[in-house]
Amino acid sequence: MKRQGLFKSAVSKEQRAKSKVLPKGFWAGGIACGIKRKKKKDLALFYSKVPAVATGVFTSNQVKAAPVLVSRKQLTVNGIRAIIVNSGCANACTGEKGLRDAHEMCNLTAKLLNIPSRSVLVASTGVIGRYLPMSKIRQGIRKLITQSTYPPIHQSTQDAVEAITTTDTFPKVVHKTFVLPSTINYELPTIHIWSCAKGAGMIHPDLATLLCFILTDLAIDSRLLRKALKTAVEQSFNRITVDSETSTNDTVFILANGLAGNQPIKKEDNNFRKFQNALNEVTLDLAKMVVKDGEGATKLVKIVVKNAKNSDEALKVAKTVAISPLVKTAFFGADPNWGRIISAIGHSGVKINPDRIDLYFNNLQVAKNGAVLKSSGGLQPAEFRNKAREIFQQKEFTATVNLNQGKANGEVYTCDLSPRYVRINAAYST
Amino acid sequence: MKRQGLFKSAVSKEQRAKSKVLPKGFWAGGIACGIKRKKKKDLALFYSKVPAVATGVFTSNQVKAAPVLVSRKQLTVNGIRAIIVNSGCANACTGEKGLRDAHEMCNLTAKLLNIPSRSVLVASTGVIGRYLPMSKIRQGIRKLITQSTYPPIHQSTQDAVEAITTTDTFPKVVHKTFVLPSTINYELPTIHIWSCAKGAGMIHPDLATLLCFILTDLAIDSRLLRKALKTAVEQSFNRITVDSETSTNDTVFILANGLAGNQPIKKEDNNFRKFQNALNEVTLDLAKMVVKDGEGATKLVKIVVKNAKNSDEALKVAKTVAISPLVKTAFFGADPNWGRIISAIGHSGVKINPDRIDLYFNNLQVAKNGAVLKSSGGLQPAEFRNKAREIFQQKEFTATVNLNQGKANGEVYTCDLSPRYVRINAAYST
Repeated sequence: MKRQGLFKSAVSKEQRAKSKVLPKGFWAGGIACGIKRKKKKDLALFYSKVPAVATGVFTSNQVKAAPVLVSRKQLTVNGIRAIIVNSGCANACTGEKGLRDAHEMCNLTAKLLNIPSRSVLVASTGVIGRYLPMSKIRQGIRKLITQSTYPPIHQSTQDAVEAITTTDTFPKVVHKTFVLPSTINYELPTIHIWSCAKGAGMIHPDLATLLCFILTDLAIDSRLLRKALKTAVEQSFNRITVDSETSTNDTVFILANGLAGNQPIKKEDNNFRKFQNALNEVTLDLAKMVVKDGEGATKLVKIVVKNAKNSDEALKVAKTVAISPLVKTAFFGADPNWGRIISAIGHSGVKINPDRIDLYFNNLQVAKNGAVLKSSGGLQPAEFRNKAREIFQQKEFTATVNLNQGKANGEVYTCDLSPRYVRINAAYST
Repeated sequence: MKRQGLFKSAVSKEQRAKSKVLPKGFWAGGIACGIKRKKKKDLALFYSKVPAVATGVFTSNQVKAAPVLVSRKQLTVNGIRAIIVNSGCANACTGEKGLRDAHEMCNLTAKLLNIPSRSVLVASTGVIGRYLPMSKIRQGIRKLITQSTYPPIHQSTQDAVEAITTTDTFPKVVHKTFVLPSTINYELPTIHIWSCAKGAGMIHPDLATLLCFILTDLAIDSRLLRKALKTAVEQSFNRITVDSETSTNDTVFILANGLAGNQPIKKEDNNFRKFQNALNEVTLDLAKMVVKDGEGATKLVKIVVKNAKNSDEALKVAKTVAISPLVKTAFFGADPNWGRIISAIGHSGVKINPDRIDLYFNNLQVAKNGAVLKSSGGLQPAEFRNKAREIFQQKEFTATVNLNQGKANGEVYTCDLSPRYVRINAAYST
């Protein structure tokens, strides 16, 4: 089913232009190999000319797709050179054959690129419970890799970005730069972080990404790279929800090939913090794009929970509100039906005092001590109702819950639930 | 928004006729007092000519509506005579004023019926976060109670059943009878259990009913009545889900006025078990009706989980599958996308072995050892796919998950998720 995105403006022209430039020594390409219908691109390759320090985080779902199991093993050695990715078929719930197929994708890619088998990662996304059409994929990999040219791939970053998507309506690419001290002279080298993601459905904290690939020319110790990635994911992809589903295939990879020429980061110093900040921005920007492009989404809503007893409880309350279908349909209908938010808070499993809950939309207070207000902020009741409705009609707004029982805060991004979400998913595999 | 039910046939003509006959000494009536638009009935009264032993179970949501808080107190004394119920406004998140309004509904009903204030229970359902229009309700109660006739109410069971509903598309009434030894002679008295419920949205285990009123002429000890009700609710209303929302107003009341003439049940003997069985049937029948009439529902699906380590885990897995929006949209689309079910099992929070999961639709095995099958039961792959699709097109079917890791089972009823659910809820309060 074709989706029309309501958030195309989320990506500026400048971003689009930038998004085509990869960090030093990286190339990417994508083609249509026939997994998807209508010649849609469905096979992507990311390639580094030198071995990169790499790490990844994966879905917390116990049912893990074959590419997740295979890549997790590949990451135990260092020196990653490539990521081969297909969309249209998740290669999940496919048993032994699925594992063999994922391995073959790595091995064939390695062989054609003339690099070690263990230096290739693999990722898949699409329908769960189908086997990969391996003859198409083999042909596709052969087409994608050009042994007679340099770089040895049909290079097009844009095609790669397109080939990793399923029901996404716009490309999700973020590119940031920062400077660090050099190894060789006083000129400060610019570090590039480039990243793309696919989102749309089965989006929920722990990991809410489906797929995300981050490429950087930074030189960094592998332990610190892992630490930075975990921190960045925790405050971004683990803070968003579209439909409360945790997928079988969620994967975030980061490859750092060290070609920028910086003094390699070996401890948690200022340079590390600069990188961490940039990486946090990259992942949070991507995460918000994923929510905006949630299947059927028309609105991005930030749920803030304040003054909980601890941050786990703040997050738990925020997530319960964020996944409530009644809250999300009210967001869609621009129906400021805030009793539903208070009701959702009450069944989060966190012990709360219902008589102390205050609720705000942007800066407008709509409930106090657990009871709805007929007016606030000196407005007449009719003005108050209009103002609340206006906020709900915006494409982005914030709902703030004050539990008034502690000092910890938490926030989550969610989208609305529209009939389109249902239509997309009712016919997804057919 | 007007709803068209797809399950009207769920109620037979015979049931409709039976449903109008209440147990001995009970009467019911309903009117339109103006809370809802278009003169829809919105105020109901259930009345017993003698004090009844009564008990109730309520929502587990910490945010409890005013009528829940008031009725819970009223139930601490015995001898209940009436239940006053309104629909169209839940009187939830309404603070002190909400409590005063709920009390006033009891007090006015008691005064006009000339019975003690403590003998009246109250229940409300509808939009959360609105105040009751008390002048309309006062007028309504005065209209509903006729002090010059006997019984002293405008009697119409059908109107009462209608007046407790919100987005329901068909009445939910169950009537059962059984016989017990008599107090006075050898003729076996027939015991009547009559019950009605309203459902539709905000339906989830712990309690999934919104409102249910059970009237019986049985003579029974109050402790045993409570025990029987808890058992019955556990295996019925706590086993269904429509949208994973636990409401602020869920209430099940049972009134037993003892007029059938049976030997009062005072211990857990055969007579008690007869009653328990009948009550279990009544509540399970009602619970299934509630799921069938789930907002936007077109299908009733039983999720059975077998061979879990213990029954809590079996239920937890079943509920995770039952609330998954991706599973529910696949049910709606008749899209036998069973990878989604296996994926949902993997994120239930229960430790499972993904490689041991078997999955069946009715008797057709579709996955074995965590991997999807291309065929089973001696069918050709094309026949197999057709058969799976046929099952998904039925209005009722069963999905059975075998975890193969223990001996405990659990089951839950759910419905599909359709665009209609979203449309109903996007505009509910407006």
